[in-house]
Amino acid sequence: MAVYTEVSDDQLDAFLADYDIGELMAFKGIAEGVENTNYMLHTKRGYYFLTLYEKRVDPKDLPFFVGLMEHCAARGLNCPQPVKNKKGNSLGELAGRPAAIITFLEGISVRRPNNAHCAALGGALAQFHQAGEGFKIRRENALGPKGWQKLAAQCAPRADEVAPGLAALIAEEVAYLSARWPANLPAGVIHADLFPDNVFFLGEKLSGLIDFYFACNDLYAYDVAICLNAWCFEIDGSFNVTKGKALLSNYNSVRPLSNAEIEALPLLARGAALRFLLTRTFDWLNVPPGALVRPKDPKEYLKKLHFHRRIERAQDYGLAA
Amino acid sequence: MAVYTEVSDDQLDAFLADYDIGELMAFKGIAEGVENTNYMLHTKRGYYFLTLYEKRVDPKDLPFFVGLMEHCAARGLNCPQPVKNKKGNSLGELAGRPAAIITFLEGISVRRPNNAHCAALGGALAQFHQAGEGFKIRRENALGPKGWQKLAAQCAPRADEVAPGLAALIAEEVAYLSARWPANLPAGVIHADLFPDNVFFLGEKLSGLIDFYFACNDLYAYDVAICLNAWCFEIDGSFNVTKGKALLSNYNSVRPLSNAEIEALPLLARGAALRFLLTRTFDWLNVPPGALVRPKDPKEYLKKLHFHRRIERAQDYGLAA
Repeated sequence: MAVYTEVSDDQLDAFLADYDIGELMAFKGIAEGVENTNYMLHTKRGYYFLTLYEKRVDPKDLPFFVGLMEHCAARGLNCPQPVKNKKGNSLGELAGRPAAIITFLEGISVRRPNNAHCAALGGALAQFHQAGEGFKIRRENALGPKGWQKLAAQCAPRADEVAPGLAALIAEEVAYLSARWPANLPAGVIHADLFPDNVFFLGEKLSGLIDFYFACNDLYAYDVAICLNAWCFEIDGSFNVTKGKALLSNYNSVRPLSNAEIEALPLLARGAALRFLLTRTFDWLNVPPGALVRPKDPKEYLKKLHFHRRIERAQDYGLAA
Repeated sequence: MAVYTEVSDDQLDAFLADYDIGELMAFKGIAEGVENTNYMLHTKRGYYFLTLYEKRVDPKDLPFFVGLMEHCAARGLNCPQPVKNKKGNSLGELAGRPAAIITFLEGISVRRPNNAHCAALGGALAQFHQAGEGFKIRRENALGPKGWQKLAAQCAPRADEVAPGLAALIAEEVAYLSARWPANLPAGVIHADLFPDNVFFLGEKLSGLIDFYFACNDLYAYDVAICLNAWCFEIDGSFNVTKGKALLSNYNSVRPLSNAEIEALPLLARGAALRFLLTRTFDWLNVPPGALVRPKDPKEYLKKLHFHRRIERAQDYGLAA
């Protein structure tokens, strides 16, 4: 939500000299992105984003992130595309940070998705899964079951400050889910963070997906489960089965879910709720001094976790029987 | 430097329905503006700023600020222009704040102005003074000599934390300058905050002035004095007389300075240095808890004040004798 790195005139001029994007006409810091610094760049050729990758992004992951955008865009997905510099590179260095110029994607993220938005999201998620096929670089999911154990251990001493009994519940869930986590479901590149703020719409038409900085190789159905959590609950914590049905049926119409994926969905949704409960609990307990961003409430995902614990069949999410 | 007010989809839709600016295509928070919340708005018609006026802006000043932009733009000055809604109003309300849509001005602010930038600034400042003529609304300068006394009293108990002896120096300067402050120099609308970040360039060509939220009625030559302070000192604290000459001679060529204004310039420049020394000292001593923005160093203006105390004639700033 901030500009972490200031760029001097000379640094910017030198960086842009390597690109063939026309004369600079405007340059503004954007208050988006918790991980990176983003500027809007307007040149005679058009509008772009300039992203400086900050410390929380591991530089060795950048070829995966940048390559994935190129791969998906080449396969017809609407997503930002890195602009290559005159040497043919999509990544450069600016103000001591790895940096990339990325095309500007039109659209607005919706804060409260309606049924039509959830339906469109389901289809776009399936298209993303298909577009990622054949991408050669691999990246493990650092926030899968192994990552949960580490986070759970870090949160354990103070988790009960968030909610009484939370440390015990987390330990129980990590053990339960790790023991049952499916191994042989269809897998490939997943977005892993496809929340409403990472999906753009023009009206109710989905215009594209952004922010691939949690993408990794994992189960496709786990990505579906993350989206069920992120898109289909109401403010009051209740699950909206109409939205669930819209999301799942549109996903299914593009990339049909296998019986094994359908069967695993309640467990995967429970794991997805645990994953965000864990990271939000960690962030809640570890607010850096002077932070302007208020951490997101972990209890939202505690409620969702309790919901999924009671679900027995994927049909309860709205999937047609 | 932040988005202080979040706008919901419904609030934005309702607000934009009052405007005839075409379908919304993008909406992004901008990390600019210490006082207000700014969003970039892209519609089928073009690019705009959406500004929400936060608590530090007195709503009764808004007709002055918004009217001034309209007045100056109508008189040919390159500056942002408020867009009128369907009812003909330039000001509306959004998310409980007064809000305005303002045209997007191309250009980039320079962090280290060179001689050509200073020359262009001098001419643009004089054009702004001329463009403001005939503007009917008045606004007193809250940061003139009377305002200094109030700020000096607020800073006095802790000013020496910034620099030893600062409280005494401030008291001495406020008394000295208030007793000698000129009353009868040419006056009108001044910008009062025309620092490099409020001036846009395309290359070395000045493309426009922004941020009129300190504008007020005061002495034109005081505005020149503020710019001498803001544009013509080097990082090491030294005054660059070539830049001063460029600024002053280009100002003079558009709006000739009277002998009385020239004679008063050292005193006015000293007052301008005191004004920014005071507000920076106040901000330095009163950082709100959790602030992400580091306050600007008051000592920069302490150095400048000492410089002006030694100046005897306007010619020492580079003005041709």
